[in-house]
Amino acid sequence: MKTVVVCSGGLDSVTLAYLVRHEHILDRLVTFDYGQRHKVEIEYAARAAADLGVRHDIVDISMLRPFLAGSALTDNVPVPDGHYAEDSMRATIVPNRNPIMLTIAYGIAAADDADFVAAAVHGGDHFIYPDCRPEFIKAFAAMQDLALDGVWRVGLLTPFVDKSKAEIVTIGAGLNVPFERTWSCYRGGEVHCGTCTERREAFALAGVADPTDYADR
Amino acid sequence: MKTVVVCSGGLDSVTLAYLVRHEHILDRLVTFDYGQRHKVEIEYAARAAADLGVRHDIVDISMLRPFLAGSALTDNVPVPDGHYAEDSMRATIVPNRNPIMLTIAYGIAAADDADFVAAAVHGGDHFIYPDCRPEFIKAFAAMQDLALDGVWRVGLLTPFVDKSKAEIVTIGAGLNVPFERTWSCYRGGEVHCGTCTERREAFALAGVADPTDYADR
Repeated sequence: MKTVVVCSGGLDSVTLAYLVRHEHILDRLVTFDYGQRHKVEIEYAARAAADLGVRHDIVDISMLRPFLAGSALTDNVPVPDGHYAEDSMRATIVPNRNPIMLTIAYGIAAADDADFVAAAVHGGDHFIYPDCRPEFIKAFAAMQDLALDGVWRVGLLTPFVDKSKAEIVTIGAGLNVPFERTWSCYRGGEVHCGTCTERREAFALAGVADPTDYADR
Repeated sequence: MKTVVVCSGGLDSVTLAYLVRHEHILDRLVTFDYGQRHKVEIEYAARAAADLGVRHDIVDISMLRPFLAGSALTDNVPVPDGHYAEDSMRATIVPNRNPIMLTIAYGIAAADDADFVAAAVHGGDHFIYPDCRPEFIKAFAAMQDLALDGVWRVGLLTPFVDKSKAEIVTIGAGLNVPFERTWSCYRGGEVHCGTCTERREAFALAGVADPTDYADR
């Protein structure tokens, strides 16, 4: 089944692209440029598409930034400690980012008569981001079925929605994903800074050798 | 309740803006530039915002066009008569347009801590466009509740979803909407071409004087 993969260039979504190539027909990778600081990941997505021999669409939605910047985002003032989780969330996330990117990916899939959109939302994100939870994914797919009813039929694949990052590493290792050609760091350095432990821990827990070059060893 | 109105500059959505100002707190109008031929309608939306004394955001999503253009759209060949309705639909509509515009409008509303997004989908569009039907609207609002859960709370207002265009004209007349300052023609002329009868009929059925200047009288 012809599948459009939303790919940031990170470990999860590049592994997803390899999994889709293994189980379906990989149509293309779609990467969103939303003005992220860690733009280097877009180059990693481009490399993954080249490695996989598929088309790569970079969709520039950075013009949405001024519209989506709430006060906490534009003030450039860190949210003080002790605030409610809700306030911290509002300060650190782009409002409605996943629904926006997924509806655009659905439009691309429909225009190309693809059967599926695949997205790499995974279990580790559930507690933080509401738009990564299984209930959201189910509701999103149901909404899209109605939106395209009778004209196109596009399904949503999220094989990692109940998986941990360590499980994704295990799956990727089985597919020979070149992990050194994926990018997980939110800072814009030359190599992964290594202060965020999520990626390191996933390799350790999976018992897979970590090929990543970290600034902080 | 603070409300963001998606406004194309057409009769329906300008009437919606006046209705929202009457019943809620009108926050702003949001207009999408998706590379439509009838760009003049964007100027009508800007005028409506000025008339109403509210902010006007023009969100340029025309960069999505190359990604959303399927073969039938890019070939520039009219779809032959006698094709299935499905094929005609595919040829003439931008895939997933309403879900894309609505998710962006939700992002804007969330960033501005607004309570509602209002959209002018109406009864007359149900048979043609799946993403104007009440089932879609309900599913879309449910999806957004889950996507923003615990962080923002934004509802969806679609007061015209079960109304005909004639009923919208009646509502607009009651709110003193300056109908001559709205635009309904998909062709890019100086005045409404008048060959599409939908707008004319709505005024006639509503028994409201039609102030529109039509090229085809």
